[in-house]
Amino acid sequence: MMPLFGSLSTYTRADLRADTVAGVVTAILLVPQAMAFAVLAGLPPQIGLYASFLPPIVYAFLGTSRTLAVGPVSVSAIMVASALGAYAGNTEAYLGTTLVLTLEIGLIFILLAALRLGELANFLSHSVLSGFTTAAALLIIVNQVPALLGVPGVSGNTTTYTGIAAILNQRDALVWATALVGVAAMLLLLAGGRSPPALLRRSGLNSQWADVFGRTIPLLAVIATTAAVMIFDLDRRYGVATVGAVPGGLPSIHFMPLQFHLWLELLPSALAISLISYVESISLAKVLADRRRQRVDANQELLALGAANLASAFSSAMPVAGGFSRTAVNFAAGARTQIAGIITGLLIGASLLAFTPLFARMPKATLAAIIIVAAAKLIDIRTVVGTWRYQRSDAVILLLTITGVLALGIERGLILGVGLSLLSGVWRMSRPHIAVVGRVPGTNHFRNVLRYRVETWPELLFIRVDADFNFMNMRRIEEFVMARLLRQPQARHLVLICSAVNHIDSSALLELERLVIGLRADGVTVHFAEVKGPVLEGLQRVPVMRQALPGRIYMQAADAIAELAGAGEPVSEAKK
Amino acid sequence: MMPLFGSLSTYTRADLRADTVAGVVTAILLVPQAMAFAVLAGLPPQIGLYASFLPPIVYAFLGTSRTLAVGPVSVSAIMVASALGAYAGNTEAYLGTTLVLTLEIGLIFILLAALRLGELANFLSHSVLSGFTTAAALLIIVNQVPALLGVPGVSGNTTTYTGIAAILNQRDALVWATALVGVAAMLLLLAGGRSPPALLRRSGLNSQWADVFGRTIPLLAVIATTAAVMIFDLDRRYGVATVGAVPGGLPSIHFMPLQFHLWLELLPSALAISLISYVESISLAKVLADRRRQRVDANQELLALGAANLASAFSSAMPVAGGFSRTAVNFAAGARTQIAGIITGLLIGASLLAFTPLFARMPKATLAAIIIVAAAKLIDIRTVVGTWRYQRSDAVILLLTITGVLALGIERGLILGVGLSLLSGVWRMSRPHIAVVGRVPGTNHFRNVLRYRVETWPELLFIRVDADFNFMNMRRIEEFVMARLLRQPQARHLVLICSAVNHIDSSALLELERLVIGLRADGVTVHFAEVKGPVLEGLQRVPVMRQALPGRIYMQAADAIAELAGAGEPVSEAKK
Repeated sequence: MMPLFGSLSTYTRADLRADTVAGVVTAILLVPQAMAFAVLAGLPPQIGLYASFLPPIVYAFLGTSRTLAVGPVSVSAIMVASALGAYAGNTEAYLGTTLVLTLEIGLIFILLAALRLGELANFLSHSVLSGFTTAAALLIIVNQVPALLGVPGVSGNTTTYTGIAAILNQRDALVWATALVGVAAMLLLLAGGRSPPALLRRSGLNSQWADVFGRTIPLLAVIATTAAVMIFDLDRRYGVATVGAVPGGLPSIHFMPLQFHLWLELLPSALAISLISYVESISLAKVLADRRRQRVDANQELLALGAANLASAFSSAMPVAGGFSRTAVNFAAGARTQIAGIITGLLIGASLLAFTPLFARMPKATLAAIIIVAAAKLIDIRTVVGTWRYQRSDAVILLLTITGVLALGIERGLILGVGLSLLSGVWRMSRPHIAVVGRVPGTNHFRNVLRYRVETWPELLFIRVDADFNFMNMRRIEEFVMARLLRQPQARHLVLICSAVNHIDSSALLELERLVIGLRADGVTVHFAEVKGPVLEGLQRVPVMRQALPGRIYMQAADAIAELAGAGEPVSEAKK
Repeated sequence: MMPLFGSLSTYTRADLRADTVAGVVTAILLVPQAMAFAVLAGLPPQIGLYASFLPPIVYAFLGTSRTLAVGPVSVSAIMVASALGAYAGNTEAYLGTTLVLTLEIGLIFILLAALRLGELANFLSHSVLSGFTTAAALLIIVNQVPALLGVPGVSGNTTTYTGIAAILNQRDALVWATALVGVAAMLLLLAGGRSPPALLRRSGLNSQWADVFGRTIPLLAVIATTAAVMIFDLDRRYGVATVGAVPGGLPSIHFMPLQFHLWLELLPSALAISLISYVESISLAKVLADRRRQRVDANQELLALGAANLASAFSSAMPVAGGFSRTAVNFAAGARTQIAGIITGLLIGASLLAFTPLFARMPKATLAAIIIVAAAKLIDIRTVVGTWRYQRSDAVILLLTITGVLALGIERGLILGVGLSLLSGVWRMSRPHIAVVGRVPGTNHFRNVLRYRVETWPELLFIRVDADFNFMNMRRIEEFVMARLLRQPQARHLVLICSAVNHIDSSALLELERLVIGLRADGVTVHFAEVKGPVLEGLQRVPVMRQALPGRIYMQAADAIAELAGAGEPVSEAKK
């Protein structure tokens, strides 16, 4: 239940040193990012800090990933903004509803862990996830451009169209000083992501450390722009919007009254956020665990993320998950165990106690720049191109998911994508690979007559179905058999080779029975070959099937030839 | 486009004689049944006759089934009643809405035919169809008991609970004379289904004809009870409800104003009725075609059913489909071609012109008895028991579909069933059969180490996945591989045998790539064997995969042994 203790059983001084450094570096990244993501979710900036204090500590005790850094993340932040759009303007209600949403997400995680249903995440295909993330990133950018340029913008908007329209309608309201600060911060961040690591590396710094240093650029941007505001009085003289007084102190624990209708109303959003958060976190945790030959337990992760979200809800904060950029920093900075996460959490707690007065004159445009640069990294054109090259149908689903999120809103877009990818899976499942096979001369092997030179017999038809028989594909199997028999009217025996059949469902069984009876009336006897043990046991449980089956069940398809072909000579076929 | 002309190219006098007899016998059954099903749908009885005049004639021209008898059917009638419950009481609006619904169903069929999407019906599993039909039959019976007993009843009710409650609440209103007529008609029908054929057969009549004669019992019941009403003045003196004046004459063609919101409102019902009607009709057509070695074209059937429904809508009637009992009569009475259907339609048209005055004093209880006896035959306990024995999960879906229809209503129950069966299909697809295999000594065959005595090598691991790799099952495949490698830490080579893999989707490809890279870092090289042509071509289209793959691709799994096992001696395993 507490994977942390496993990590601590062999804990050394060197481990503590590495974890401390990583924890500090991650905290430096996390402070501005957490505030920015809270603003993205439509919340006051300190909420992001609250979500970065207790949740990573709770996760550290329960999570199996040693390096996953938990806190507010951009995609779920925009999902929160979209879910709570109706409450925008009423700060009290907005905050209260965020807590209910976070609590609900935590409970969903724990319920899924209890039911061991982590596998549900398997139904989110990579195409849908990639399309969803790209579209969410575009939404995030559109959502933050107003703050970057000092334009009022629309809160709680959920489609790109309304977002872009709002920006264009209010372009006259642009505050030049804000735009200047915002663009400067963005340029610093963009440059920081590239040149300094390269520069530092050339100056002899270890490349890993150069990378880590590059990640502290957000804090530098915050310090530089806040200093500029203070020195030049940009807020009072030029109207640059700042964060304003950030209440200090640790979060107080809240208890919420139970409002059933609100819980029900938020349920779809909570499910969508849980699904995305879980899949992102577990994928990230697995990639990192693979690199260090560690194992991640999917169910335990659900439990840990659930507990982290409950901790977030009880500290008046927002939904949390494993975040990509900060986990990468934590890993690159050398985190060895969950202790690094505990150190990060404690440092955020300390900053809440000591540093919040410093945030008051931080320009909002800097936070917008941090969000935009983080979101831009989520736009994944490579996957679109790669998927298009490899498989058109998946690429179409990916593009439809993007379009759906941008045009219909974030949750409906996700539902559209998941629905389409499941349908395409079902559609493919309904079209099994079926082959007429013949014997490779001189062997007992059977191969596709279209691909190999094999022997066949006019009165015998061997068909191999490379799929389980189920209600979705049985009609196609039947049609294939009937079409092939029409082309081989001398056939008197049909041998169904079931080497790839692991299961026959009850609908398929009835259709199969009907097929066997129908063909018998037509003078064709149906036999089976290479039926696997469990399938055979299933068939024998059904009295009707035992009676309906006039043919035999052969261990090997080749056994059927001696018995059924009689004196018939094989025909050597060479089709292509 | 006109399969009828194909049938007529070899038409003989004997065919005409057979078709005429069958057409007449079917019409005799159809007159009371059509009126009864119209009443079941909440419509005046003549609507059922309208639906039995032009639609079978239109179907005869376009349909590929030579013997399917098209007209109103009980299951879609109760679905119409359920869909239009909100309009009950306002005859004008109810009739108008029925026409829109019928038109919409016709257009859905034609759209599906144009898109060649008849395969969508494959997604309705036999368990769901059977459960749905059984539950609909129970609903029909509950719906008709009030009319049988002379109790007022509730129109448009859609759950059994409200239906049964209505009957119990109004049991004081029971009209004894009506109940007497109803029960007598029902006994006659029940007896007619059994004894007379046996009796007649013993008296030397051909058994097939005895069967056909048994099917005319509904008309006899109608004549006998109507005569009783006339002779004893049951309607005026004892309050037996009768059908009342049935307007004569052929239906007039109607044009409906286009009301978009109404179309949208009726769309879910129209889709549900189309799906059920199509699956019932095509299954019936296929069973009969099989018996006479004829072929049914699914797409052409969609077109023909669509046209029949359009014809029904334009003759002010109700949705039509292939009906089970009347098709069975048509077939048993010797129908050879679609000419029988045309004769049935013309006879119904003639009866509209000549006989409607005779229907005025027909007791409603007789129609209720006809409906109840027809519905009772649809209750399919055998499939419940058979499915339970063969496969619990399918039986549970069947029972949940029944419960859903009875408790939630007809459409929501259907959606529940279809959703559950698709989910169970997807769930099964996400759990592929995976086996560690070894070489059968002295051969090149590989078999499951759990089932056969085979050779394995400590540094080599052979794994065979019996399914396509896709986004739903890839994580399970990966978990299986990782778990197996943990138990065989000496393994240096993993050979994935892909003999059953016909497709790898783009999500699975990415996961596979990640697995290959992760294992390489762990000192395990991944190889592939027996990769099918199309899969190999797909893999080679992806540059990353070419680079990521340090291992080889073997034609035969056995080829890997010579190269990878080196001097290593096999271990003979005998696990069970």
